Amino acid sequence: MKWMAALACVLVTSMCLAQAAQSFRPASTNVWGAQYPRIDDAGRVQVRVKAPEADSVRLNFWSGPKLQMQKQPDGFWTVTTEPLVPGFHYYTLVIDGAEVADPGSQAFFGGSRHASGVEIPEPGTTFYSVQDVPHGQVREVWYHSQVTATWRHALVYLPPGYDSQNERRYPVLYLQHGGGEDETGWIRQGRANFILDNLIAARQAEPMIVVMAYGYALRAGESLPEPAPFGSPQMWQAMQHMTSTFEDDVTQALIPFIDKTFRTLTDRDNRAMAGLSLGGMQTFHITLRHLDLFSHIGGFSGAGGVLGDSAGKFDPKTDYEGAFADAAGFAKKVHVFWIGVGTAEPERFHARIGGLHKNLDAAGIEHIYVESQGTDHEWQTWRRALHDFAPRLFRTRKTRS
Amino acid sequence: MKWMAALACVLVTSMCLAQAAQSFRPASTNVWGAQYPRIDDAGRVQVRVKAPEADSVRLNFWSGPKLQMQKQPDGFWTVTTEPLVPGFHYYTLVIDGAEVADPGSQAFFGGSRHASGVEIPEPGTTFYSVQDVPHGQVREVWYHSQVTATWRHALVYLPPGYDSQNERRYPVLYLQHGGGEDETGWIRQGRANFILDNLIAARQAEPMIVVMAYGYALRAGESLPEPAPFGSPQMWQAMQHMTSTFEDDVTQALIPFIDKTFRTLTDRDNRAMAGLSLGGMQTFHITLRHLDLFSHIGGFSGAGGVLGDSAGKFDPKTDYEGAFADAAGFAKKVHVFWIGVGTAEPERFHARIGGLHKNLDAAGIEHIYVESQGTDHEWQTWRRALHDFAPRLFRTRKTRS
Repeated sequence: MKWMAALACVLVTSMCLAQAAQSFRPASTNVWGAQYPRIDDAGRVQVRVKAPEADSVRLNFWSGPKLQMQKQPDGFWTVTTEPLVPGFHYYTLVIDGAEVADPGSQAFFGGSRHASGVEIPEPGTTFYSVQDVPHGQVREVWYHSQVTATWRHALVYLPPGYDSQNERRYPVLYLQHGGGEDETGWIRQGRANFILDNLIAARQAEPMIVVMAYGYALRAGESLPEPAPFGSPQMWQAMQHMTSTFEDDVTQALIPFIDKTFRTLTDRDNRAMAGLSLGGMQTFHITLRHLDLFSHIGGFSGAGGVLGDSAGKFDPKTDYEGAFADAAGFAKKVHVFWIGVGTAEPERFHARIGGLHKNLDAAGIEHIYVESQGTDHEWQTWRRALHDFAPRLFRTRKTRS
Repeated sequence: MKWMAALACVLVTSMCLAQAAQSFRPASTNVWGAQYPRIDDAGRVQVRVKAPEADSVRLNFWSGPKLQMQKQPDGFWTVTTEPLVPGFHYYTLVIDGAEVADPGSQAFFGGSRHASGVEIPEPGTTFYSVQDVPHGQVREVWYHSQVTATWRHALVYLPPGYDSQNERRYPVLYLQHGGGEDETGWIRQGRANFILDNLIAARQAEPMIVVMAYGYALRAGESLPEPAPFGSPQMWQAMQHMTSTFEDDVTQALIPFIDKTFRTLTDRDNRAMAGLSLGGMQTFHITLRHLDLFSHIGGFSGAGGVLGDSAGKFDPKTDYEGAFADAAGFAKKVHVFWIGVGTAEPERFHARIGGLHKNLDAAGIEHIYVESQGTDHEWQTWRRALHDFAPRLFRTRKTRS
């Protein structure tokens, strides 16, 4: 009990000074009552897990340190990391070869599993914090897709005031998760609702609806391939294979459902799509083949298949059925064409996104390229991307369809 | 790949017959692409996890079998259970003494952690299935509570038609999770949204709003006690301690927020509260002290503290500040007073709920008592409870405040 610790402090001052100096506190991403993982102001993370009969326990930050944990006499294993950069970091524990989630953490869907995560605050940064401003609502919807012949789950952010302004119609951003994640990622890990709440309250973004769909789709009757380990070539192959099915689901089932269910503006000028990593690839695939439906495009650490290939294979005349062939026409149609990457991401993402940027420049294709300083292929990069992208949407109306 | 398995079937007929006889298939509660856990028509569950360096892996169904798993030459551990009863079953894996979630399962918040779960279908039962009927929406809301001085998260079910019938107002059911669970339980595990969708489509229940709040609350400035293992006396003590804070949060922050945010009917005749286990205890505590606010009460495998004590301590004249003292007056005020328990629940729940039933009968207090046949202290009991309870709500209006 806290008061017992306080009592102990009165008795043993030195202990308390040592505690204060370290000042570790439970992470905001912990489950109710869990004291670990703990973080300090420098961004160090202390992890602790009970595994009395284990021979080896490792801490595995997916984009960070991989550390052997130390066994304590009480059967708990502990370790403290070096300072981590701010943001949300996925991690797992490897207990005698079994890769599992930490019971002390909330569960976040990534890597095709419910993994653990820890949030390191960024000092002075509040754009993704819950603040005392009007809040939109995140709604869960189920829609029946004739493409997949299944009920599909999506999350929909409705901006503040949606319920009280009964006549108003809103533009729509379709916002996709990455490979191995699902439709909950942009809310749970990305805090997209708070990012939009804060931008809208500051009048920096138009009130908009944000639709977060489940990015995997198999056609009616099609079977799921045998399991492919996360990150394996087979997995990426399966996910790419599903992109054309997802394209049909979005254009034939999801968009009609959203436009029927919510007070949307249904013309192309008022419809955007963006995604991170795999979701960026899907965004390019879907929007560039359906410029009759979309006028704003965002690729966050991810872009089209052949696009951005560092080998320089990009051919603006033929790729994507010639969507880029007419640079002036493209600029007229596409009001925002945004790509970005974190400076600390692995080289292949730089090569791909930075290469795409150069290729687009060389071909005279109007676009916005933004680098996120010091962030990896992680959610802090994508929170910043959304925070930069959303204010640009639905502001100018170069064309009317 | 599926077609390779099909090809193998052509070549090795005997193998395929063996497969067909077993007919294990991935559980509906699995994460995307996970082939395990698998279930068969009899309700057997096959679990499989990779733990190549472990000495011992156990499968732990919380209200079911606890089994030693067998190590296979490939480093995976497997086991097959006896047939389990239909419904949703929480489980964990114990790997060399570490109790963790199964990476193949979706995460369900229970036991103060994200645990694993497996859904065993109940043949012929569709009341909690997603069906081709109009669907309500589940909304996530955040409200600021002056009681806790924090932003609090709740889920709100809005019935089909809420958005299109702009003038219509709806009655409200406040529906609480159990101890160690959270506000997501009634949707993820309980499928309350589908239960309501189906009842409303069949005109068996009034269209209503269902509010699912986070049942833990600490007053502003109050600290969380040190962690108490799930199920320990300290944990129950902490949860009971928080009930009066939660009472203030519900009556002073949550209800005003809901009535301000949604088109509710705000009189007591149109407000109900129910909960399971700990949530039933909280429901009794809150509703019986606020009969000015509530007129329908449900306790699913849980009821008030002293109430239902098998030692027979129930005193209708004095308990709950005399709410039961006037049986006729109580019956006039409380339109539905519902308690229930599963026949396969541990004896202490029978003693408590069954004992309460007898005590209420003896005191001449009008109530409904329903037993769920063959089900344990698990979600199948509470799905059935909601399915029996919801149709009774907001039908009769004995009084008007």
